[in-house]
Amino acid sequence: MMQLKSNLKKLFPILEWGVAYSRGTFASDLTAAVIVTIMLIPQSLAYAMLAGLPPEVGLYASMLPLVFYALFGTSRTLAVGPVAVASLMTAAAVGAIAKPGTIGYLEAAILLALLSGLMLMAMGFLRLGFLANFLSHPVISGFITASGLLIAVSQMKHILGVPAGGHNMVEQVSALAAHVRETNLPTLLIGTLSVAFLFFVRLKLKALLLKLGLRPGLADFITKAGPVIAVAATTLVTASWHLDAAGVRVVGAVPVGLPAIGLPHVDLTLARDLAVAAFLISLIGFVESISVAQTLAAKRRQRIDPDQELIALGAANVGSALSGGYPVTGGFARSVVNFDAGAETPAAGAFTAIGIAAATVFLTPFLYFLPKATLAATIIVAVLSLVDLKALSRTWAYSRSDFAAMAATILVTLGAGVELGVSAGVALSLALYLYRTSRPHCAIVGQVPGTEHFRNVLRHNVVTSDKVLTLRVDESLYFANARFLEDKIYSLIAGNKALKHVVLMCPAVNSIDASALESLEAINSRLAHAGVTFHLSEVKGPVMDRLKRSHFLSELTGKVFLSQFQAFTELAPDKAQPKQAAE
Amino acid sequence: MMQLKSNLKKLFPILEWGVAYSRGTFASDLTAAVIVTIMLIPQSLAYAMLAGLPPEVGLYASMLPLVFYALFGTSRTLAVGPVAVASLMTAAAVGAIAKPGTIGYLEAAILLALLSGLMLMAMGFLRLGFLANFLSHPVISGFITASGLLIAVSQMKHILGVPAGGHNMVEQVSALAAHVRETNLPTLLIGTLSVAFLFFVRLKLKALLLKLGLRPGLADFITKAGPVIAVAATTLVTASWHLDAAGVRVVGAVPVGLPAIGLPHVDLTLARDLAVAAFLISLIGFVESISVAQTLAAKRRQRIDPDQELIALGAANVGSALSGGYPVTGGFARSVVNFDAGAETPAAGAFTAIGIAAATVFLTPFLYFLPKATLAATIIVAVLSLVDLKALSRTWAYSRSDFAAMAATILVTLGAGVELGVSAGVALSLALYLYRTSRPHCAIVGQVPGTEHFRNVLRHNVVTSDKVLTLRVDESLYFANARFLEDKIYSLIAGNKALKHVVLMCPAVNSIDASALESLEAINSRLAHAGVTFHLSEVKGPVMDRLKRSHFLSELTGKVFLSQFQAFTELAPDKAQPKQAAE
Repeated sequence: MMQLKSNLKKLFPILEWGVAYSRGTFASDLTAAVIVTIMLIPQSLAYAMLAGLPPEVGLYASMLPLVFYALFGTSRTLAVGPVAVASLMTAAAVGAIAKPGTIGYLEAAILLALLSGLMLMAMGFLRLGFLANFLSHPVISGFITASGLLIAVSQMKHILGVPAGGHNMVEQVSALAAHVRETNLPTLLIGTLSVAFLFFVRLKLKALLLKLGLRPGLADFITKAGPVIAVAATTLVTASWHLDAAGVRVVGAVPVGLPAIGLPHVDLTLARDLAVAAFLISLIGFVESISVAQTLAAKRRQRIDPDQELIALGAANVGSALSGGYPVTGGFARSVVNFDAGAETPAAGAFTAIGIAAATVFLTPFLYFLPKATLAATIIVAVLSLVDLKALSRTWAYSRSDFAAMAATILVTLGAGVELGVSAGVALSLALYLYRTSRPHCAIVGQVPGTEHFRNVLRHNVVTSDKVLTLRVDESLYFANARFLEDKIYSLIAGNKALKHVVLMCPAVNSIDASALESLEAINSRLAHAGVTFHLSEVKGPVMDRLKRSHFLSELTGKVFLSQFQAFTELAPDKAQPKQAAE
Repeated sequence: MMQLKSNLKKLFPILEWGVAYSRGTFASDLTAAVIVTIMLIPQSLAYAMLAGLPPEVGLYASMLPLVFYALFGTSRTLAVGPVAVASLMTAAAVGAIAKPGTIGYLEAAILLALLSGLMLMAMGFLRLGFLANFLSHPVISGFITASGLLIAVSQMKHILGVPAGGHNMVEQVSALAAHVRETNLPTLLIGTLSVAFLFFVRLKLKALLLKLGLRPGLADFITKAGPVIAVAATTLVTASWHLDAAGVRVVGAVPVGLPAIGLPHVDLTLARDLAVAAFLISLIGFVESISVAQTLAAKRRQRIDPDQELIALGAANVGSALSGGYPVTGGFARSVVNFDAGAETPAAGAFTAIGIAAATVFLTPFLYFLPKATLAATIIVAVLSLVDLKALSRTWAYSRSDFAAMAATILVTLGAGVELGVSAGVALSLALYLYRTSRPHCAIVGQVPGTEHFRNVLRHNVVTSDKVLTLRVDESLYFANARFLEDKIYSLIAGNKALKHVVLMCPAVNSIDASALESLEAINSRLAHAGVTFHLSEVKGPVMDRLKRSHFLSELTGKVFLSQFQAFTELAPDKAQPKQAAE
């Protein structure tokens, strides 16, 4: 009974925080919800456009998903909904299957949300969240930078008011260049003024308002409302002067009212075609989401359960699919705003959903004259903050192989699209890791005089013996480096007639797999043929436990020494230096 | 000049041993060559049949390749030529493209040798030999066992004298079952008697001859000649009684004379189709070859250079392709015989090639009545020694994940063929390795009273402090386990109000990549928000060097302690125990 209760609480964290819900918490959550709603309305319209979907789909993806996340999520402050990178990935995946604007395109996007949701939930129940760990930081960082650049360039057509497209940077830039002469001037004016205004709001407005004497809370609120102001102003201008007749493309008629709830149409062939994309969107969405959730939770010493987060994000995506939306995840900027605005529980998300629902019912008629250029401007200003080219030089300074993975991810994403980009990055970072561990750092060591320490003969002034060769290997021994170790030892003994003992010093060996065991056996027997005795020293407990389950220890020609000092003292008594009395 | 000379000697090891060649060496090499030639004649005919090729192709693959290996090889005793596993893989790869017996089939097999040769040489020059290390021992061992079973079953049709075939175990067994009623009795008699005779020769004959008073050398020679005796006897019987008219299938007319030397026909589309197979044959051939070469070399304290071996095996395969042969590699049994017979230099291989050439010129007319059942019998007896099912239980006892890789390789090879089998094994063993390192062993440690040692609190009676938490992580930190470490630390501090310090103890951390650095930074800043100081202890030199190239050390809220004892003494002076005077 207790177990059931605890399991239920684990699956529905709302049972935990819901019980303690108070009027004070309600007030905090409501305030945060109002601010997030104001931020989310233009964002959801804009990201739907980025995904190639009708604007209302963005609103639909900002209701039920938030409620579902509130039921299952372990983060108190994560704000779920449409985000830039998932929208770009949706456009790439669905665009390969159907033409934007068709029913097929919309159905594929909804199916993508369903698949992504089911995959996330399955990963959560099967505790497969660790799969996301294989997206290394340089790959994620490079991928998000490249996505930001791709997104910004993809929105330029809306700023110029020209038709263009393409699946990668080269295609997009050349399409823009081909159409640049057809630029629509009123559109360009609205677009560039919006971009300029939004950059001003983001970078300068708050300081200015504070200087003018506004309260920090109010200044913050006005700053957050920047995109709404841009939307309202450009819509008003376009409607008053009927700029749509002058070629300014507008959002147009948006269906009024809440989305119909129901199971989406599931086409199995289509589902198979979308599976890889759904998997990548799920993984990347999860990684983005969990990292912002953990950052915010740590500030209040709260805890995020990654496997439960998979279930919650999965439920949010299933919710999106059930209500005609597209893939969603936790947004970075939005969650920080939610946190800063004082959200205390996921109820804030549910209240945001109510705000968006109200907007869908009451505001949609006013969106008719909203210029697409304004939405493009909000996207461009938002995504340019994702672009972090300095990370390239930081990573280069720290590690060449991490740099290679990051650079490859950026280049392949820009040149060949999002799916290949992230796959290439993952493949390369795994290959580089395996390559590194397949050629571990090895050192021939000798005794530091007067101590029990043994250090690299190349770096330190140490005592060695012609009869004893001690090799320290700084890596777990496994199949990829087992033969490397064999080659190393054979090349060290070849032609070395004085040698009587080889000691393998293992303080950094965390495991020895069956291939490495086979190599140790081969080394042992080949050294025996050559009249050399093979010893081990400083083998860790768990590794020793496992060796005891094999025949190796009974076949070993030499001994397993607890410490290298013991080994050297016994094997080269003429050379080994006693430890000095004083330490 | 000296450099050039040394490079030339490296590329042509013959320049090294050729200079010191003496009459004594010549006598030893010649004796070994005679014995190997007698062993190789029936083997080369049989393996060509296994590969689905005319018998003379096996002889062609046993001449030029041996000469080329003698020029480039670093092993003094490796015997190169057609082998069972490469023949099976050739049959699988070429059989997917052409029908056995056609010109297209032969051309594809020759092209496969060329591709494999060029790949091996390229890998040698680019020093890519390490790629072979990713074939773990359980995968190789499972693959060879499964190949042995597949080969033995594939030869049953020749023993029964029925038509059958199939690409995997199930297909082959059901084809045999469908045709078993058509068994040709004379063929069955020849086949089973040959198998029985060869098993007797292999297992009992030598002991019997020694008991009869023969000299060990002669007894050995007669034993090695077993297959030749079987071939001669069954050929004679078949020819005398014209058993071919009774349905015994024979080798038939074999072209007399040496092969024409020339560039093979290269079809680029075909080459692309064969590329994966050529790569796998190259890798597996290299692994088989290098392991026998190293075993034999170590017995005489000689050295094998793996990259030069790639060049030598590549040259051997190119040689095979130029003279109408198919893929070759170093054979295990044959090399051991060569070594035991006293071969001292690769010249023994060249002499063997002359022996095979003589056989091709003078013996081929006598092969007309050689029953295919006899060749099948020699194959079956040879490959059953490759099957090592006990390795399954040995591996199970040592490591479950190695067992899984081995079992998967065997099952997929038997069920879906050689290429998928070995690929599945490699993929699974990599995945299991990555999974293991993605969830490293971690231990909360405390001080062993009266010592400077810190051990796992769960296994030892140690001193800890409520204010200080020390976590030792037994693995290098990299992207796949970076978030695991974060989760671990966050869950340890969640709700722990007394905690003031977290120490990460790093004696087993051989490297920290950019993702792990990012995680350490996140841990540092999130702990700071929670009012907890973050420290490191026992960081290795190379890892510290790299950390110094980042901002991490300047942002770290705590310190980097040289030893965990120092850390605990400074952070928990009330708890830490002084070291006892006597050791």
